[in-house]
Amino acid sequence: MSKLLFYYDNLSQPCRALEIFLKINSIPYVPKRVNLAGGEHFQQDYLKINPFKKVPVIDDNGFILIESVAIFRYLCRERTVPDHWYPKNSQLRARVDEYLEWQHTETRAHCALYFRVTTLDPLITGIQPSPKKVNDFKRRMIEVCDKMNDIWLKDGKKYITGDNITIADLLATAELEQLRMTDYDPREGRSALASWMARVRQRTNPYYDEANVRINKLAEKIKSKNDSLNVLSKL
Amino acid sequence: MSKLLFYYDNLSQPCRALEIFLKINSIPYVPKRVNLAGGEHFQQDYLKINPFKKVPVIDDNGFILIESVAIFRYLCRERTVPDHWYPKNSQLRARVDEYLEWQHTETRAHCALYFRVTTLDPLITGIQPSPKKVNDFKRRMIEVCDKMNDIWLKDGKKYITGDNITIADLLATAELEQLRMTDYDPREGRSALASWMARVRQRTNPYYDEANVRINKLAEKIKSKNDSLNVLSKL
Repeated sequence: MSKLLFYYDNLSQPCRALEIFLKINSIPYVPKRVNLAGGEHFQQDYLKINPFKKVPVIDDNGFILIESVAIFRYLCRERTVPDHWYPKNSQLRARVDEYLEWQHTETRAHCALYFRVTTLDPLITGIQPSPKKVNDFKRRMIEVCDKMNDIWLKDGKKYITGDNITIADLLATAELEQLRMTDYDPREGRSALASWMARVRQRTNPYYDEANVRINKLAEKIKSKNDSLNVLSKL
Repeated sequence: MSKLLFYYDNLSQPCRALEIFLKINSIPYVPKRVNLAGGEHFQQDYLKINPFKKVPVIDDNGFILIESVAIFRYLCRERTVPDHWYPKNSQLRARVDEYLEWQHTETRAHCALYFRVTTLDPLITGIQPSPKKVNDFKRRMIEVCDKMNDIWLKDGKKYITGDNITIADLLATAELEQLRMTDYDPREGRSALASWMARVRQRTNPYYDEANVRINKLAEKIKSKNDSLNVLSKL
């Protein structure tokens, strides 16, 4: 088997989803931490790996691949993983793809932007956003959480695409967990979403909790008002 | 072969990309126009087809699928199409996936938003955006055009992922063609991008031009200052 390098930072949602996937499927990899808080993704060496300055990236024996969803699909082909993660059945696979394509400008965009506007940017700049800005971003984030609860998880579905866990669930929960670092809990008032998040965690532990150690620590520090830039850089 | 219904409006970029794909591959389908300007995507009947109120959607003998990129992948499995569109070779396929996942928040988001802010919203509301707003959206759209020219199409690549046309090229050119309806021509000053767009058009004609008839007419009307709401609804 070829050597797999995994460039990541577990402050990043898709990196955490991939970390859980690699570990639960016992896929050997070499972790290559890219310190986002330290700006390592902007350095010249890293731009040769990803000119778009983002994580995650894999290097599979010289084949460099960016974009988390593309990486998931590639690993499902190139490594031995149970079929349920990304089913070979054409219609089941299409259901997973449907969510994976939808989420970019929905779950991913709006949860991440709410975190950025309310938490990350103020930590870096020391400037608080205007209430109007917070409300605009909050409204969009709430709409997305409602869509997850009321549309994707309707009719008592166990996982996003049905009875089995897929890569869609890993990516989706990683985005929602990012909200831990804000003032908003997406579980409150959304029973389908809350029980699904608990189910994904239970199904993938201890790897789920391992991937979230760092953001959970950060969430605690933010809540205890120790909100200096050091919060980020010391973790 | 099962009956394929195609819900579309060719004001929509991914709908045009799919239309070209269906026609060039002689995939039989039943066109089901969803009049976006008339708000048909918000009507109760359509919400049963797509609760997210968007086009395109396919209904393949009862299997309803949303999200254009998921639809492309499904059709590449379920119909007979030349391998180059979405190669079976794992690394080539990963290269196509890489672009398809990247584009959601880049080419797709920023070209569409620039069109919306400068052209569509003023047509509907009669209110012109502030110069600051236009400039903010223009800057992001220009960055995306530069990334297409300087990164994706660098080193004289014929198509986004190499020597052959793929579904990535269809989706990408559809987003860039949307700018025809604005004041910005992405080809100017970008020779790699300009020659690639011409190449994709030539490779897929007459279907490329057919898919663009409606937006080309709209672009002319907008340029001739006949900028009432009727421009949209009469096309």
